[in-house]
Amino acid sequence: MSGEFNLIDKYLVGRQSRRKDVLLAAGDDCALVKSPSNVSIAVSTDTLVAGTHFLESANPSWVAHKALASNISDLAAMGATPAWVSFALTMPEPKEEWLAPFCDSFFKLADYFGIQLIGGDTTKGPLSLTLTVQGFVPEDQALRRSGAKIGDWIYVTGDLGDSKAGLDVILDDTLREKEGASILESRHYLSSPRVLVGQALLNTASSAIDISDGLISDLNHILQRSGVGASIDVSLLPISQELREFTQNEELAQQYALTSGEEYELCFTVPEENKGAIESVLNHTGTKVTCIGQIRPEGTLELHSNGTIVDWQLSGYDHFKVKQ
Amino acid sequence: MSGEFNLIDKYLVGRQSRRKDVLLAAGDDCALVKSPSNVSIAVSTDTLVAGTHFLESANPSWVAHKALASNISDLAAMGATPAWVSFALTMPEPKEEWLAPFCDSFFKLADYFGIQLIGGDTTKGPLSLTLTVQGFVPEDQALRRSGAKIGDWIYVTGDLGDSKAGLDVILDDTLREKEGASILESRHYLSSPRVLVGQALLNTASSAIDISDGLISDLNHILQRSGVGASIDVSLLPISQELREFTQNEELAQQYALTSGEEYELCFTVPEENKGAIESVLNHTGTKVTCIGQIRPEGTLELHSNGTIVDWQLSGYDHFKVKQ
Repeated sequence: MSGEFNLIDKYLVGRQSRRKDVLLAAGDDCALVKSPSNVSIAVSTDTLVAGTHFLESANPSWVAHKALASNISDLAAMGATPAWVSFALTMPEPKEEWLAPFCDSFFKLADYFGIQLIGGDTTKGPLSLTLTVQGFVPEDQALRRSGAKIGDWIYVTGDLGDSKAGLDVILDDTLREKEGASILESRHYLSSPRVLVGQALLNTASSAIDISDGLISDLNHILQRSGVGASIDVSLLPISQELREFTQNEELAQQYALTSGEEYELCFTVPEENKGAIESVLNHTGTKVTCIGQIRPEGTLELHSNGTIVDWQLSGYDHFKVKQ
Repeated sequence: MSGEFNLIDKYLVGRQSRRKDVLLAAGDDCALVKSPSNVSIAVSTDTLVAGTHFLESANPSWVAHKALASNISDLAAMGATPAWVSFALTMPEPKEEWLAPFCDSFFKLADYFGIQLIGGDTTKGPLSLTLTVQGFVPEDQALRRSGAKIGDWIYVTGDLGDSKAGLDVILDDTLREKEGASILESRHYLSSPRVLVGQALLNTASSAIDISDGLISDLNHILQRSGVGASIDVSLLPISQELREFTQNEELAQQYALTSGEEYELCFTVPEENKGAIESVLNHTGTKVTCIGQIRPEGTLELHSNGTIVDWQLSGYDHFKVKQ
């Protein structure tokens, strides 16, 4: 881009330390990078559109974090180590007061994970952002959705449900007075991609996915790909103190945990023989993980609470019957 | 994406033959690909936004061709061989009558160049498209903008100016009656990325760029990066019969050739000692190339016509003085 969009160069070019595998990052027709030998390259592309994925008025530093974190989370779900990111930003006009905090936040998160910006495009149009992230995973070891076996245990990282409660707050100002509302709002934007967990699970988990559409929906992707069913004990779902206070209702909090999208926690399955090792394998990551159920043969996703079947009419729940 | 956007899967998944270096293309958190050893990976990202880069009413098969061709052209300019593409499509609602011709055209061009779609994202929002293409170039041999030396000869592929004339037709229906108008309109959308030329130039050219902003603007990128100037003989510019008939004025046609953007032809420089080899090196590509000038020491871009300096006030021409 030429003209006023050169402003963006000021914020994007030369902002971070160089990786040795980036031979050329900007200023030519392409970036040039070099893959290590004996790895697969994991590639993920995500778009965030103003009005669909964030409000136009949202804090630009939160938007940057959400965009990059959601992409890194896809790498984490395969057990990949992040390396490079390409960046396509479309905005009506370049505004320094938006770009400065946006880029500060973007590069802070990129630097944290050792990711280098290798190029991209800035164009004029309705506000949106498309990122393509790439990372490395040891050959033939990537965590896939298709590896879950009957009897494997189902785990999730972190707490679930906060992102949905945060979205409630964002969309309804009257909820701002509720206990924990501002913490939940920030959690909607400021997830922590579970890169260390994904890497640690490479030889331990049988399948993994990141929770972007909601636990039920994403677990169902594992079930479909693996040709199995599952049983989840909703009483085991990890729920934050803030979500408990926000919902004032344990069942409602559990329903939030089951359907909350854009959590960017991992859901993964572990064979019985590896269950004992999980704690020590993940100890260095400092991330809470919780066993919430087990893979079953039948092609359905059954919910129970301490053994009593629950039959909640969750939004879109009839979609969640496993298609074999 | 879930719900109605699943429609898009129908058009995007499993539409082309698999490359052996694509281990996993769709249906998981990331694609998994494998780079050959001894190559650099060239990566380019471009966004096309409706209203900025194409009209919302444009023929969807032409939009698809333009989007992918402009990205492939960036690979061609580095001498890279295309391999993979990631795809991010944002549209207000999925329309089969738009997606079907769009995807037919997209995969036709991708297949022609042996490119596999390795994933992407489809989101709801104002119509736009971001592609990230990747390709391979032998290590340390990529054509860069920075290699032009004083005395090198300046070449361009194909004809120049048609894209700008085509845009005139697109934006002004009264021009449709002009000679060659419909051919020029289609040329604006349907460029031919010069992949074979880029590959053939790997050991012959000293620098290269693709013409996306206009010859003067793009050549100026080479001059800036290489720290040199240039002299162009406008009487040598390759101009199509259709553009001659459209402009009815040789000087105007030359000015179109100098400033026409989105041509996706290559501009490259060749050292004196390789000049004799150019014809045989490029013979198998079937692509016309034309020598239009020479690299000079002074930091300016001088235009002349058969030795007589021309001083045209081209749009934005004062920007074209080389910044050292």
